[in-house]
Amino acid sequence: MLNSMGATARVRMTPDDRRRQLVGIGLRKFVERPVQELSLDEVAAEAGVSRGLLFHYFPTKRAFYLACVAAAGRRILRNTAPDPDLEPTEQIRAMVLRFVEQIDRRRGFYLSLVHGTGGGDLGVVEVYDGIRDQATTRVLDALGLDAGSRPVVHAWWAYVEDHALGWSAGPPGRRTTSLAELVDHCVAALDALLGLPGSAA
Amino acid sequence: MLNSMGATARVRMTPDDRRRQLVGIGLRKFVERPVQELSLDEVAAEAGVSRGLLFHYFPTKRAFYLACVAAAGRRILRNTAPDPDLEPTEQIRAMVLRFVEQIDRRRGFYLSLVHGTGGGDLGVVEVYDGIRDQATTRVLDALGLDAGSRPVVHAWWAYVEDHALGWSAGPPGRRTTSLAELVDHCVAALDALLGLPGSAA
Repeated sequence: MLNSMGATARVRMTPDDRRRQLVGIGLRKFVERPVQELSLDEVAAEAGVSRGLLFHYFPTKRAFYLACVAAAGRRILRNTAPDPDLEPTEQIRAMVLRFVEQIDRRRGFYLSLVHGTGGGDLGVVEVYDGIRDQATTRVLDALGLDAGSRPVVHAWWAYVEDHALGWSAGPPGRRTTSLAELVDHCVAALDALLGLPGSAA
Repeated sequence: MLNSMGATARVRMTPDDRRRQLVGIGLRKFVERPVQELSLDEVAAEAGVSRGLLFHYFPTKRAFYLACVAAAGRRILRNTAPDPDLEPTEQIRAMVLRFVEQIDRRRGFYLSLVHGTGGGDLGVVEVYDGIRDQATTRVLDALGLDAGSRPVVHAWWAYVEDHALGWSAGPPGRRTTSLAELVDHCVAALDALLGLPGSAA
């Protein structure tokens, strides 16, 4: 890193800050391209640290990738958190909107989270399942539903995700459905699905 | 392989038959345990061929795994094929039933197909997407729907899959929903979702 004097400086950070910085760089990189194509040397260089220091925090590329995936999961949950001041249905609407926006903005990375194309393993699946579980709990809480409705709400998120992935695959200019229409459809879908027999089995 | 005389015999097969035999063994193995734990030596031994011959057909373990995944995709599609003699709704019901049964029978392998835990890559995603696309086309054809309904039907399959994975996760004796109830719910869900605004956008 070049400081304002043009000299190479190594910024002193606490271990936690350093870890956060490295994961932040990784997150940005993994959104741009697949994990296979990323070299840890690049990450170290961008952070202004040695490869040795990076390996001190993350002993393997896999460990670094998993830390980034876990951070991505936390970010998705943060970015889609419900606003308890809204009416229940509006909370759902806002969650769906933000979820679709998340996927649209980082589609490749999200797909690698779903399908393990960045090297699938149980750590990635755990992050993915954790997002779905948490999002399901949020909907149950917002609507005051009990655990009997969990399978329907959980599967409804799969429905929303599939729509979001399909919708975001098309170039923005050629989408036949607007984001608002997609969100409206998904909100109405939840209502319809919860009203069916077997929805609180 | 021991023949009836107790001697080791190497059965002569055409290349296609040999390939099919090897993939068949792989499919069985991958259902039992993750790809990471499988040795190709085991597969060769079971087929009664040398490791060299196995590598002649599949130059890498990855190539062998992908061939098995592709075969699994074809099998899933074959096992869930619609019966054109049934009424449209009954065709859907039978497809859903067979799809849930497939997942229930080979849950671990199906999960590896979804999440790439057997080593995710674009080849696996292609097989997975192919199943979803084909299953979607079948429903559109059975119900006489045009391409405008594709996103809803496609996402509905994601809804069915999530239900099937959740349902099959529980031990059979402790499931609160019967298979018939689950299938009924999914069939009714499709009808409800297709009736919503934005379903033929």
